[in-house]
Amino acid sequence: MKPTHIEHLGIAVTSIEEAAPFFEFLTGNKCYSIEEVADQKVRTAFFKVGEVKIELLEPTSPESTIAKFIEKNGGRGGVHHVAFNVENVAEALAECEAAGIQLIDKAPRKGAENLMIAFLHPKSTKGVLTELCQQPGASSR
Amino acid sequence: MKPTHIEHLGIAVTSIEEAAPFFEFLTGNKCYSIEEVADQKVRTAFFKVGEVKIELLEPTSPESTIAKFIEKNGGRGGVHHVAFNVENVAEALAECEAAGIQLIDKAPRKGAENLMIAFLHPKSTKGVLTELCQQPGASSR
Repeated sequence: MKPTHIEHLGIAVTSIEEAAPFFEFLTGNKCYSIEEVADQKVRTAFFKVGEVKIELLEPTSPESTIAKFIEKNGGRGGVHHVAFNVENVAEALAECEAAGIQLIDKAPRKGAENLMIAFLHPKSTKGVLTELCQQPGASSR
Repeated sequence: MKPTHIEHLGIAVTSIEEAAPFFEFLTGNKCYSIEEVADQKVRTAFFKVGEVKIELLEPTSPESTIAKFIEKNGGRGGVHHVAFNVENVAEALAECEAAGIQLIDKAPRKGAENLMIAFLHPKSTKGVLTELCQQPGASSR
């Protein structure tokens, strides 16, 4: 696989409103977007630092995987996933599968910011929940 | 604070030898450095992806904070810390302290790759263990 860069770090938080001032301080940049991703039951907030985005993830339901992550983490947030930008998620997934990596998503689906995304299983990725992302409009040969 | 970019992600692993092939596959790049950091009781291995480094951290002693992290995490590795590159760590630490952020390191110390580093306490950083880094030779006005 040949990702161009780390697209974003997904960080679970209990409250975007409560966490945003710290991440504005840490990145030196204002939050530039807040978006609800209904099918993931999260609200997201984005900050930029260099070429990487920080994506805060706040659960909108106790059924959200983010709510479960926070619960398992003793009620605290933390780094939830690392997302790598690739030219073509479907091709990258095929490469991962051929390499014996367990997939959470067998096919790309739509994520926040209109990216096409897919997750790899942390059992196959040394405990790091790994997302692959493709920019809107990027080649899907 | 105004970091230039995310310098690296610190990822705890039980064994660099066992984990390295996966991270070579994931980043599309060979490991370019293996280094022991004796005072942290870890061996580190580095991979580049875009402007960010992946730093694998393998404990060299059960007393290592990385060994304790892995133990607490059910014997598995995962994302241990996120490191932000700043021009001057001492100045950034002063800014953090003035903002009420709890510091682990009151003053910069030497880390892997000859960086000057300091950690912020995850209690003050929304559960994300946060490192500040300064490149060797960067301004220390």
